[in-house]
Order: sequence, then C-alpha cells, then structure tokens
Amino acid sequence: MTININTLIFECIIGILDFERHTPQKVSVDVEIAYPYKDEFIDYSHVTEHIKISMKKYQFKLIEEALISLQNSLKQDFPQITSLSLTISKPDILPDCRVSVTQKLNY
Amino acid sequence: MTININTLIFECIIGILDFERHTPQKVSVDVEIAYPYKDEFIDYSHVTEHIKISMKKYQFKLIEEALISLQNSLKQDFPQITSLSLTISKPDILPDCRVSVTQKLNY
Amino acid sequence: MTININTLIFECIIGILDFERHTPQKVSVDVEIAYPYKDEFIDYSHVTEHIKISMKKYQFKLIEEALISLQNSLKQDFPQITSLSLTISKPDILPDCRVSVTQKLNY
Amino acid sequence: MTININTLIFECIIGILDFERHTPQKVSVDVEIAYPYKDEFIDYSHVTEHIKISMKKYQFKLIEEALISLQNSLKQDFPQITSLSLTISKPDILPDCRVSVTQKLNY
Repeated sequence: MTININTLIFECIIGILDFERHTPQKVSVDVEIAYPYKDEFIDYSHVTEHIKISMKKYQFKLIEEALISLQNSLKQDFPQITSLSLTISKPDILPDCRVSVTQKLNY
Repeated sequence: MTININTLIFECIIGILDFERHTPQKVSVDVEIAYPYKDEFIDYSHVTEHIKISMKKYQFKLIEEALISLQNSLKQDFPQITSLSLTISKPDILPDCRVSVTQKLNY
Repeated sequence: MTININTLIFECIIGILDFERHTPQKVSVDVEIAYPYKDEFIDYSHVTEHIKISMKKYQFKLIEEALISLQNSLKQDFPQITSLSLTISKPDILPDCRVSVTQKLNY
Repeated sequence: MTININTLIFECIIGILDFERHTPQKVSVDVEIAYPYKDEFIDYSHVTEHIKISMKKYQFKLIEEALISLQNSLKQDFPQITSLSLTISKPDILPDCRVSVTQKLNY
C-alpha cells in the first residue's frame, strides 16, 4: 500500500540566505510512503503533522538536511515504512523556474 | 495495451470519522489496467461503472479496504487484466495538501 | 535521445458509437519516441503530421486499432525508432473522468 | 540526493528555421540531477545560471545539440553528478501540441 501526500504547503524558516533566516517562506512537500498494509493503516494526517512540526521546529539551513532528518524521524515514528520518497520545494525562491530536492530510501 | 482512467470523480460514503459516515464526500479515482489486447477490448465505461457502483454500495471505512475490494472485483469482472494500479484520493479531506492511496498488483 | 509530443489535439472520426461514426470528436495524442541520435534527427513536426494524417484518413473504430496501426506506420517512416510509447485520449467522451489508452513497444 | 529544476523559462536563439536564427524564442528546460550528498551540496541557482548562459551564448541550431553540450558542460562544472536528465521544450513552436526532447545519462 502506498500513501501519497502532494503539495503539502506551509511556511517555515529554511535556507542559508540572510532573509531566509528571518522570514518564513512557503515550502511544498510531496511524500510517497510504501508499507505492508494488514490490519493497521498509517494515518496520512499523522504524517503531515509530523512533517510540519519537524520543519517548523528545526528551521533547517539546507533542504538536504531537512530531507535526511525527516527520513530518519518518519521511519522512527512509523517503523512499518518500507520505502520513502520525500520532495521539498521552495516554490517562490527562484523567479524563472521551480526547484525542489528529492530523497528516496528503501529501508 | 494499457487503459488509463484519470480523475474519475463522484461522491460516496467513505471514511471512519463521524461526519464521513453520514455525509457523502468527493472521491477521485485513477486506474491503470494492462491486459493483452487481441480481438476483444476492455470497455473503459464498464470499468468506471464498476468502480462507482461498488464504492457507493459498500461505503468503505478505509480507502485501503476499498482498494483491496476493487482489486479483487475488477479482476473477477475483467479476468484478462494482467496488472492493475488503483489510486483513491479524498481531494477535500485535508486543507493544506492532497492525499491519496495507491495499490498496484501484477496478477 | 527521446522526443516527447504532448497533447497533440485535433479532430477525427473515431469510435464505435453511432454518433462517433458521423461527428468528428476531439482526440489528444501523447508520443514518446526514443532513437539513437548521431547526425540525423527526427523532425517532431513530421511525426505530428504523420499522426494527424493517418488518424483522419483511417477513421478507426477502436483506439486500440489506431494505436497498433500508428505503431507500425511510424516505425516504417522513421526506422531509427528503438522504442515508442503512444497514448490516445478522448478527453470529452465520459463526463466524469478522462480516459486514454497507451501502447508501448521496444523494437 | 536529486535536484529537480522545472520549467526554467527564458529566451534564446535556437532552431534551424530562418526566423529562429533572428528572433529569440521561449524555451522551457527541465533538469534532474542526482549526486551523492555528503557535506557539500550543489546549488540549484548555479545550475540554472549555467544553463541560461550556455544556451544564450551558443545559439544552438538543434535542441539535440544543446542537450549534448549541456550534458558535457554541466558534468565538467559539477563533477559530483552521477546521473542527469535534461529536457528542452520549445513551448510555442507548434500550434497544436507541446514538443520537447530529453536526454538522460548515467556517468
């Protein structure tokens, strides 16, 4: 069974530029979680809460650091996950394109 | 040959929350059906009818249950299917993202 | 090198229903062509012309027949093709979803 | 770690038709860069600058030539890249569809 969470949009402090340390900016997160469904299911609203709380709390400097941190903490909270794809986008950071970074892991 | 049905939108009772047991909500279903086409083709309108009738009738509690039920009943009605991918989304259930669950099976 | 042609939209006679034999309807075609590029390139405008001329001329009854015919005739006109994915959609045929059929082939 | 740059839109001279040699036209570039992230990250804004400067400077005749040139020059500037997918689209060149060409390489 695969849970897809797309364009989870919220604001947080993220980035290494001066203004990015002071002003929260919009991020958009995509998640794909595979796990063996038997009787217990993973609640997608718990996953979205986990991601928003973690990124608002840690105020990561790099998207890359956020991805690695979430990869570990999601697996800790939802140990039944067998594979995870995480994409974090800063949709407004560059004026002429859309950038994002993706990390995939099979546990 | 692969049939793709995208954003099949209709309303049905689905979910475990109180209001979800009483009020029909919008669902969006995506289907990818692979089968060996020779002389007989699978009619996409029969597939969409099958899905709408089944989900309206059974009023599933979990998207996961709906996916497993459809996986079995579609294969029964269209035995020539060799692989099936089903995605059910509740586009309006969370305010800040879009969630769906996917199940894929090679028969 | 892979050529992508997306949402090639035109009108033609296609389908088995009564009204479909008399009234041209909108189709949307997606193509992915892989071939080894050395000095000669495949001109995407020749590919789109091939598809439009063929589908208008043959007035296929089934999308499946159109896919198989195009698969053969494109390979004949562009023998350097090594793999081909063709998707034909009738975007307006069902009111509550979007349907298409895909055929992929490695030569 | 995979960097995705989508719909990087700018104008440049590209193409073999007469008007394409004189009039800059809109291109849209998509990039997917995989590399092993340890302590150093690839800055997506450096990648977008590299692409824009190169395509404006060389005024390629074929999209295919632009893809091969960028494939080499990006690897030279960012030697840590392990795989690269580049797509260049001329969104306005054909009136009834969208065309692009993609080149993928694992280094």
